[in-house]
Amino acid sequence: MTEIAQIRQWDMFEIELSGPDDGNPFVDVAISAEFRFKNRAVPVDGFYDGQGRYKVRFMPDEIGSWRFTTMSSAPQLDGQSGEFLCVEPRETSHGPVRVTQDHHFVYADGTPYWPIGTTCYVWNHQGDTLEEQTLTTLKESAFNKIRMCVFPKDYDFNKNEPCLYPYEGSVDEGFDFTRFNPAFFAHLEQRINDLQALGIEADLILFHPYDRWGFSDMGAEADNRYLRYVTARLASFPNVWWSFANEYDLMKGKSLNDWDRFFRIVQEHDPAQHLRSIHNCRGFYDHGKPWVTHSSIQHADLGRVREWRNTYGKPVVVDECCYEGNIPHGWGNISARELVHRFWLGTAQGGYVGHGETYCHPEDILWWSKGGILHGDSPTRIAFLREILEAAPHGMTPVELVRNADTIGQPGEFYLAYLGATQPSYKVLALPDDKEFEVEIIDAWAMTVTKAPGRYSGQTRVDLPSRPHLALLVSRV
Amino acid sequence: MTEIAQIRQWDMFEIELSGPDDGNPFVDVAISAEFRFKNRAVPVDGFYDGQGRYKVRFMPDEIGSWRFTTMSSAPQLDGQSGEFLCVEPRETSHGPVRVTQDHHFVYADGTPYWPIGTTCYVWNHQGDTLEEQTLTTLKESAFNKIRMCVFPKDYDFNKNEPCLYPYEGSVDEGFDFTRFNPAFFAHLEQRINDLQALGIEADLILFHPYDRWGFSDMGAEADNRYLRYVTARLASFPNVWWSFANEYDLMKGKSLNDWDRFFRIVQEHDPAQHLRSIHNCRGFYDHGKPWVTHSSIQHADLGRVREWRNTYGKPVVVDECCYEGNIPHGWGNISARELVHRFWLGTAQGGYVGHGETYCHPEDILWWSKGGILHGDSPTRIAFLREILEAAPHGMTPVELVRNADTIGQPGEFYLAYLGATQPSYKVLALPDDKEFEVEIIDAWAMTVTKAPGRYSGQTRVDLPSRPHLALLVSRV
Repeated sequence: MTEIAQIRQWDMFEIELSGPDDGNPFVDVAISAEFRFKNRAVPVDGFYDGQGRYKVRFMPDEIGSWRFTTMSSAPQLDGQSGEFLCVEPRETSHGPVRVTQDHHFVYADGTPYWPIGTTCYVWNHQGDTLEEQTLTTLKESAFNKIRMCVFPKDYDFNKNEPCLYPYEGSVDEGFDFTRFNPAFFAHLEQRINDLQALGIEADLILFHPYDRWGFSDMGAEADNRYLRYVTARLASFPNVWWSFANEYDLMKGKSLNDWDRFFRIVQEHDPAQHLRSIHNCRGFYDHGKPWVTHSSIQHADLGRVREWRNTYGKPVVVDECCYEGNIPHGWGNISARELVHRFWLGTAQGGYVGHGETYCHPEDILWWSKGGILHGDSPTRIAFLREILEAAPHGMTPVELVRNADTIGQPGEFYLAYLGATQPSYKVLALPDDKEFEVEIIDAWAMTVTKAPGRYSGQTRVDLPSRPHLALLVSRV
Repeated sequence: MTEIAQIRQWDMFEIELSGPDDGNPFVDVAISAEFRFKNRAVPVDGFYDGQGRYKVRFMPDEIGSWRFTTMSSAPQLDGQSGEFLCVEPRETSHGPVRVTQDHHFVYADGTPYWPIGTTCYVWNHQGDTLEEQTLTTLKESAFNKIRMCVFPKDYDFNKNEPCLYPYEGSVDEGFDFTRFNPAFFAHLEQRINDLQALGIEADLILFHPYDRWGFSDMGAEADNRYLRYVTARLASFPNVWWSFANEYDLMKGKSLNDWDRFFRIVQEHDPAQHLRSIHNCRGFYDHGKPWVTHSSIQHADLGRVREWRNTYGKPVVVDECCYEGNIPHGWGNISARELVHRFWLGTAQGGYVGHGETYCHPEDILWWSKGGILHGDSPTRIAFLREILEAAPHGMTPVELVRNADTIGQPGEFYLAYLGATQPSYKVLALPDDKEFEVEIIDAWAMTVTKAPGRYSGQTRVDLPSRPHLALLVSRV
């Protein structure tokens, strides 16, 4: 009697089979499987991993008995079947992140998730020494999401070659977009797993314009193949988010129809239905389109988050609102104080904000792109904001409490009001008459929490220390 | 042989005549005069000053011999004539301010004028002790323009009665809008003269909505009479500007047609053609209308000055961009640093910015409304900006020099670039290849000027100290 394999919920179950290694298996051989749970059938694409190895990966989302059968154009890969038992998840595993309450995020197991993102576009292309330093930095930080590219990057401060390329070929001879490089993807997968171990979501950027190798302009057929391959390899990782582009609107070779098609390809082939978004330079993609799960936005004016929230009816993640740093580029030289302000403003408008850091470095190791260590003063304050959010009710919505202060909360129970750059000596709160509240005064920059004396009800005045960047936490007693 | 009166250019020549004091001379008796210089004839309205006294005031704008003849519906006031000699102006007198080069200001004698305004809406209604303190404060400040109301003000922190009312009557019995109070206007004129002695333009607000006495809603006939009377009394003061309203759009009793008419009445009857503008709360009046000399704007986003400059083709004065202070109101609690930033930003976009201060005070003496003393940290920095501007070429226009930094200048000669909230460690200037320039690094907050080493030409890098609120002065050697 064979022992039945046990797989923890949201871990990866992998079928590995040997098959043909002649011709070009990446394009010649189709492989997939159907996974069944009771009467539910889940189609899952497999992929060729080189050296005659074929794999089908699956992340079971229900506890209980699963069965599978493979399908393939290659007879020796076809009709293989088996079963496994999906058991309780690891204690630290909460499953993929989903949208909840229209504008918020939650893990599959119901644990609230507040994205506190950072950006290291190509940290995963820098070699083990720097990549491990980045992981150490992330471990000590409060960030629980990272924007990162599949493809390497060519841009100011980014002139080094990557360690590995996604396709067979070379810089001198060119790349064969019909033949993937399994070692490249194995390395990417290792880094995604490293992030998962730290509780960090990998907001994986599938295309971007900063390219000297041709990956930004491979043609429709190669783009489609790439998306299918990446989905087949990575959809079974719980912490993957699909970000279709960094600055899609700078990729002049792709039309809006192309982007729509990319979304649909991944939507159709991803058994886990990971989050899907697309990031702009200037004009937004229509985040209202049904395959977009949340609005990923580059914009410096966080005072518009509420508008975008209402326009698209989805969570708003301002992934890029300028970076703390001192490079000459306008998007990369705001102060820590300004970035922290933007985090609080976006939060108090009911959205989520992302971090990045661009301090000049003698070896061009800027966190925003290559990782390494953090030099700035915003991450500590962002960690402080995360603590405050995680102690607050999940799913707060914009509410009215104080004039000229953006506020989110649960009416009658809890409010978080941000006073921004203003420095009032007092404010009048419009609280319910029939309930009592406590007020805490937060200094977003100094990271202090000071209890205001007494209790508050109805139209009530709260004295304040006349400093910018204060917030009020108002909790029902 | 009679001695001919000598009047200095831009001083006031006043005809005083005795006439009827029965009935209501304010409405029953018309008086005016025609002033002639060579073949030029200037019609000038007179006014009734109470106690049987009639006056016609005129500010001669040309040096030489002037003649005049009065005209009146009252026989004893009609046909009086005389002459005077207009001579060189006093050394400190430069005449009224005019628009020059589409977007700038200049005194009548050609002296450049950079408006550095402040706001004390009803300082002139507070009694001599406080009013004299305000004048002392102004004397020590860098402000050369003040926004102030003719009518008293009713608003938060403004609940006291004024010392004088513009009309006969009382709070209890109401006011007679057909009978002006000459003592009220004499006091206003004294304060305008006090400002003139300090070199300060009186940006006189003719209507405003913050009223409990009825002056904001007197009806069309009384509004017209008021404008004629004010023009007749005050057009001969060199430092008067006509601001038709503070927040015209909050005066629901007046239509756009009313505002148009007000402009035209004053335009037709003002022999000196003083500057004319109108200030909004939210939506702008169309500053493109021909009777508007410059755009007077309330707006917090100084990054739009260049747009308004182009839209209206006139000077842009952002008279209200929120005030330094700590009251709860959103427009009155920005930090000194933020206000100074807005001054520089508006300046570097080719406009002019106004100051105000609203710190809570135990007796509700807030500078923005009542005057008194200044408590904030912005006036010193604004004075520093004024020094820099007055040492720069007059009439600078927006130009391109540095990416992501608003710049004004005279191409090839001089540039003032403001780096705003950014903190770059260096910037690249696009200077002409064939000329050499010196660069000074300004810290707008710390008020320091640091010469960058060496000389600069062509595409050239300037190292910077990675702090927010820096500006660059680039001067041809």
